[in-house]
Amino acid sequence: MKRDKTTVGRQMIQWAKLHMPVLSQIMSHFSRTKPLRGLQIGAALHVEAKTAVLMKTLIEGGAKVAITGCNPLSTKDEVATALAGEGAQVFAKRGESKQEYYKNLNRVLATKPDILIDDGGDLIVLAHKKPKLITQILGASEETTTGVIRLKAMERDRVLRIPVIAVNDSPGKRYFDNRFGTAESTLQALMSITNTQISGKKVVVIGFGFVGRGIASRARGLGARVVVVESDPVKALEATFEGFEVLPMRNAARVGDIFITATGSYHVIRKEHFRIMKDKAILCNAGHFNVEIDIGGLAQISKKRRKIMEDVEEFTLRNGRRLYLLTEGRLVNLAGRRSLGHPIEIMDLSFSLQALSVEYLAKYGSQMEPGVYNVPPEIDRKVVTLKLKAMGVELEPLTPEQQEYQRSWEMGT
Amino acid sequence: MKRDKTTVGRQMIQWAKLHMPVLSQIMSHFSRTKPLRGLQIGAALHVEAKTAVLMKTLIEGGAKVAITGCNPLSTKDEVATALAGEGAQVFAKRGESKQEYYKNLNRVLATKPDILIDDGGDLIVLAHKKPKLITQILGASEETTTGVIRLKAMERDRVLRIPVIAVNDSPGKRYFDNRFGTAESTLQALMSITNTQISGKKVVVIGFGFVGRGIASRARGLGARVVVVESDPVKALEATFEGFEVLPMRNAARVGDIFITATGSYHVIRKEHFRIMKDKAILCNAGHFNVEIDIGGLAQISKKRRKIMEDVEEFTLRNGRRLYLLTEGRLVNLAGRRSLGHPIEIMDLSFSLQALSVEYLAKYGSQMEPGVYNVPPEIDRKVVTLKLKAMGVELEPLTPEQQEYQRSWEMGT
Amino acid sequence: MKRDKTTVGRQMIQWAKLHMPVLSQIMSHFSRTKPLRGLQIGAALHVEAKTAVLMKTLIEGGAKVAITGCNPLSTKDEVATALAGEGAQVFAKRGESKQEYYKNLNRVLATKPDILIDDGGDLIVLAHKKPKLITQILGASEETTTGVIRLKAMERDRVLRIPVIAVNDSPGKRYFDNRFGTAESTLQALMSITNTQISGKKVVVIGFGFVGRGIASRARGLGARVVVVESDPVKALEATFEGFEVLPMRNAARVGDIFITATGSYHVIRKEHFRIMKDKAILCNAGHFNVEIDIGGLAQISKKRRKIMEDVEEFTLRNGRRLYLLTEGRLVNLAGRRSLGHPIEIMDLSFSLQALSVEYLAKYGSQMEPGVYNVPPEIDRKVVTLKLKAMGVELEPLTPEQQEYQRSWEMGT
Amino acid sequence: MKRDKTTVGRQMIQWAKLHMPVLSQIMSHFSRTKPLRGLQIGAALHVEAKTAVLMKTLIEGGAKVAITGCNPLSTKDEVATALAGEGAQVFAKRGESKQEYYKNLNRVLATKPDILIDDGGDLIVLAHKKPKLITQILGASEETTTGVIRLKAMERDRVLRIPVIAVNDSPGKRYFDNRFGTAESTLQALMSITNTQISGKKVVVIGFGFVGRGIASRARGLGARVVVVESDPVKALEATFEGFEVLPMRNAARVGDIFITATGSYHVIRKEHFRIMKDKAILCNAGHFNVEIDIGGLAQISKKRRKIMEDVEEFTLRNGRRLYLLTEGRLVNLAGRRSLGHPIEIMDLSFSLQALSVEYLAKYGSQMEPGVYNVPPEIDRKVVTLKLKAMGVELEPLTPEQQEYQRSWEMGT
Repeated sequence: MKRDKTTVGRQMIQWAKLHMPVLSQIMSHFSRTKPLRGLQIGAALHVEAKTAVLMKTLIEGGAKVAITGCNPLSTKDEVATALAGEGAQVFAKRGESKQEYYKNLNRVLATKPDILIDDGGDLIVLAHKKPKLITQILGASEETTTGVIRLKAMERDRVLRIPVIAVNDSPGKRYFDNRFGTAESTLQALMSITNTQISGKKVVVIGFGFVGRGIASRARGLGARVVVVESDPVKALEATFEGFEVLPMRNAARVGDIFITATGSYHVIRKEHFRIMKDKAILCNAGHFNVEIDIGGLAQISKKRRKIMEDVEEFTLRNGRRLYLLTEGRLVNLAGRRSLGHPIEIMDLSFSLQALSVEYLAKYGSQMEPGVYNVPPEIDRKVVTLKLKAMGVELEPLTPEQQEYQRSWEMGT
Repeated sequence: MKRDKTTVGRQMIQWAKLHMPVLSQIMSHFSRTKPLRGLQIGAALHVEAKTAVLMKTLIEGGAKVAITGCNPLSTKDEVATALAGEGAQVFAKRGESKQEYYKNLNRVLATKPDILIDDGGDLIVLAHKKPKLITQILGASEETTTGVIRLKAMERDRVLRIPVIAVNDSPGKRYFDNRFGTAESTLQALMSITNTQISGKKVVVIGFGFVGRGIASRARGLGARVVVVESDPVKALEATFEGFEVLPMRNAARVGDIFITATGSYHVIRKEHFRIMKDKAILCNAGHFNVEIDIGGLAQISKKRRKIMEDVEEFTLRNGRRLYLLTEGRLVNLAGRRSLGHPIEIMDLSFSLQALSVEYLAKYGSQMEPGVYNVPPEIDRKVVTLKLKAMGVELEPLTPEQQEYQRSWEMGT
Repeated sequence: MKRDKTTVGRQMIQWAKLHMPVLSQIMSHFSRTKPLRGLQIGAALHVEAKTAVLMKTLIEGGAKVAITGCNPLSTKDEVATALAGEGAQVFAKRGESKQEYYKNLNRVLATKPDILIDDGGDLIVLAHKKPKLITQILGASEETTTGVIRLKAMERDRVLRIPVIAVNDSPGKRYFDNRFGTAESTLQALMSITNTQISGKKVVVIGFGFVGRGIASRARGLGARVVVVESDPVKALEATFEGFEVLPMRNAARVGDIFITATGSYHVIRKEHFRIMKDKAILCNAGHFNVEIDIGGLAQISKKRRKIMEDVEEFTLRNGRRLYLLTEGRLVNLAGRRSLGHPIEIMDLSFSLQALSVEYLAKYGSQMEPGVYNVPPEIDRKVVTLKLKAMGVELEPLTPEQQEYQRSWEMGT
Repeated sequence: MKRDKTTVGRQMIQWAKLHMPVLSQIMSHFSRTKPLRGLQIGAALHVEAKTAVLMKTLIEGGAKVAITGCNPLSTKDEVATALAGEGAQVFAKRGESKQEYYKNLNRVLATKPDILIDDGGDLIVLAHKKPKLITQILGASEETTTGVIRLKAMERDRVLRIPVIAVNDSPGKRYFDNRFGTAESTLQALMSITNTQISGKKVVVIGFGFVGRGIASRARGLGARVVVVESDPVKALEATFEGFEVLPMRNAARVGDIFITATGSYHVIRKEHFRIMKDKAILCNAGHFNVEIDIGGLAQISKKRRKIMEDVEEFTLRNGRRLYLLTEGRLVNLAGRRSLGHPIEIMDLSFSLQALSVEYLAKYGSQMEPGVYNVPPEIDRKVVTLKLKAMGVELEPLTPEQQEYQRSWEMGT
């Protein structure tokens, strides 16, 4: 049984690697140049197949690696098992309690990592609570919007002690992973967990940032009637001009069949909304933390709560209506048993940026002041360009005249 | 373990029933009126959760039911187990050999069914090989385009001996199940089996009938660049005007990343096409039978063939390129372990039509001549109207003046 | 000035011909074979550039041609002038009164036509009021859904005296002209008359037949939020599953910014709807006759009515709200000064079908019983196939095995 | 005749004002507060109906206004005439020579403007050649990407002498006007000039900035198969993941039916591309200047060049193929006789930003250093918020908890 699990996990990792041509090239390069020789790397990431390819890349680069999950539900146990067999220290399993979760973060930090790779900021925040450790860390990289917001808040409050590369903010990550990756994986998960029909449904997307607009666009592409909820006027107007209905939650709550949160904010669906929802509405979250839906509040106003199916909980309100919460309000595209996370090919971009950012920190981290840094533009450009090449997409070269024209201001009508 | 399976299957069936409001109403009605009392019904259908709700409806209506699969890979074992516990005779498991498959069809026929429900025509064709049995059958209903084409060929060749209601051809089925249902389920399966990205991919859809155009439209909705292959000029021109690239296979083969067959035809992807495909192309089928992709031919020209992951086989051609075949070329939306079949809500339509067609055959079958019949329009209209009501969609009523206007020809400019 | 008009008209006709490759081929063929030699043809069609190419084709085929408009507003005067210079008798100008309109229909009939080409049925109906004339007519062809419905009512009432080919009902016409042609031309006209923004607007499309679904789809493609109003349950459910909001008029009336009627029915927008519309709502019609919007009713409940711009009338209701009616409720895609009618390329299909249907009537009309006929399938297939060739779109040929497979029923799982 | 023109122009301006609720509010406010009293404003803008509403707003605000065109072909003469009747000095007519164009710019500068409003940068550049004048100018605002690029080049080269507000760069302008406005108006113009079909056509969009991606998206929404040509890797990958075919020009040139340039660059379509284009390809430009298509080069390799219709020129190459250039390569959405420019409602945003930016310059311009400035964010937010209110779109308010949450970093998993 154990063996089978390992086999399945290995197959998944190999399949993933096959579809990550850019990261594979970096792996080959790392295996020759060993840029991470002697370094200990600590990671808190979703422990699944694509992540395993990143870990293997770092190991090929000469690093020792310890990894834990960045979410109690997102670990794929087969992958965890297989990855452990490939030389990484893996402290993760699906369905951790909060205690186990933090225990595992601490285990990673106990390896005295030189560099951190984080997804959501928990590892970096925790490292800051270990005064001795934090001074020895060269730097870190952060994968998500949520994490970067936390880190910038730390920077603003002057408590950030290490340089952190905000991989999330790089065009090569945010324009693709956040917009296209989350959209596909959220819909894959939603369909796979519930077998519900998307076409004809009223899907309420809360938040119209990169993640939200991706989900809104793809849900519409599958035939849903999409309603957008947004607090920011520019984004709300964009959504309107892209043909979405924009409503405040108190109106959206009445009409939605499926609700997907993607705000990075807190309690965006609350008691006053649950009470007016339709019978059988489905609730799920695509943001990093499980605080976007007020689950505690939902439980309070429910007369009955029960798990009715893998990854589906039923809440029966006092008005008799039933609401269905997926994957405990954790990010639905990773936390469900049938959720696969982002498409492999999109993670080829994000994790290539991670690998090269780690290499950058290995080289320059010791000279960098504490602070939140952008991915160096040449890394971003390199990864995107390699990706295009791998996909066979060709750019139009600029002529010398065009380059000159863009510099000049004299030539007019 | 057995018990767990039953529990899981039951949960899936209950969840399905919850989202089949029209069939649930019919079930309630049947349970009061018992229109099928004393009848034995034999079914060959995909044995999964939605089908189980149909079986329960028939049982509520007073019938005895025996069911087998209509495809060797599409049975969900948990559902089969749970359904057996609800009083149906179930002869089906996932992964049958061809022999087992036919043995199970025979077992269903051995129950001396009065009415058949078929999906693909295998059960009806087999019943025609049993001269004594066939004369005692009141009638049958058929779910698929493929089955109806076979039955019409039988009618044309004057070998059809019973009345068959072509549920597939009803607007309430074909315009929805074939177009919207297959599209979503095919994409759900494709994403769930492979974790591949759809956006940015070149997806070749072969066949632009109801199934094909649904898939093409939804794949585009997810960001794919879709190429359509079609033999019929009207359909090819429709595809073009809907913004799809239309190419013959010999050109499409060179450019596709993912190939999906939906023709109901034979060997639409062949050796000459495999040879010119790109490395890592993915092949799958959404048509009823596993003959659309010439798998034998593919094996012949491959130097290596191996299963590399659940539901994924790798063929390495002599030119070194690797092609990936999903679910043995069987209908990808049902045959994969992670494939869930059509969305529940869409099957509410199709199976409500089935239930009422069976009731119709119970009443009138004995007076009907052999032949292929349309679903009676009042049944079709009733089911669609109930569905709209359940979804809260309101029609615009015609005024008396409008009704009069549509009958007249005098009023002009 | 006259001369300029002729020049402009000629340029428009030449430009149209350039983009009608199929009709151009038929014209060449006709000019060699003269299949219409000696025949007088009477037409009531929108007198604009594409129509002129059809008329020239008939003239090249040896016919004498008399033409009038089929709508008081749709004649392009430059084209009428230019066409008169090419040998056709033209009785049409933009902005005819109803009297002039019928006078012109009578003028066409006064030429004693052997064959009629009609758009909407007015010419054919009028010919039936001339007992002597009607017996001498070989047959007619009809272009529109509206006309075909009238003719079928005549057939049902046993008053139809001649064979009529329902060009409208041919797949080569209805699937393209009605769906793609009307959609583009309606949006072109709407944008050109009003300079209004489509994206972000709530566009209410009344009727989800071929015309309505085309408009709904393209309006959404331009960023509108589209609401569909429909009486037929199957169409309403299709619209829902394609992601449109389906509402009855009394609800749609409250939310729409732009209303487009496409029903072929009568008074689908009425007083009770006008009264609850938003200030500045725009009303227009894409159906054949100007009866879909109850303009008389609108005038009755308005305290003020005035033309405020070319093709735009303002109605001020007693509640102070202003509604804007385009092109007097006549088909907006043809009746506006800036409306250009269907895209040229789509009329290449429809008018090629017309030309070959006229040729067919010339040959076989005298042997055909009165009744409504389909376009002979070989004509339909020929035109669509030539169109594909002209566009460079290649079909996938069927292999002999595939042809055999489609005939057989034995081969199953 | 003159009178008629005035009437038509006035109607167009009134119609435009009716659909510019935000600018209308600003106009009312200005008419009470007179923030521009005593100021002379010089503008170079497309002289059409929406622009006239802006000019009237400035006049209501107490300013004296002189305006000329910013493109030799984009002036609507009726509007120019009507606007002159409303108290503005208007130096513009459609179809100016280059000399007349610059003469008119000089006339505007001869009024000794205190503030400039520019579109493309010609007026501001010219003002810098008048050493005495430039020192007396409070500031300027610039409407376009092209103009801002020129101004930033001037800033970089240290020759910019006045503060300029880059209205173009404001989210309230660029995310809407550039993306949604140009797309609709370009398609309106293309359809209105040529009556060509968009659906089924291969449309090549060159440049995937805000303008290009808008056009690509809407052309696809109308059924076109869209090819994108791009030099920037991130944009090229975005286009790919949004489902567009991305090709270099040398490949795109072979397959396109319609080419639309939107790069702001120089000679993006050149001789080597014309030579391999298909017969009857249509060429047009949506960028500010008429240098994106190398018209001189096209003429050189043509054996024949003639105007064949309003706004359409035919070039016959030596290989016999004919290419059709629209509106002399000038911005097709404004320069054609039937081109109406952006939808009115979108210009409500852009021109409200302009009006408030001018007010800002009137107040603070004298204290601002030379340089390119962003629109003050409070102006941007105000305009977008008023627009949402006018459209009836409601935002979701942030709760105090949410505001607190976004500031904190402690709360994690």
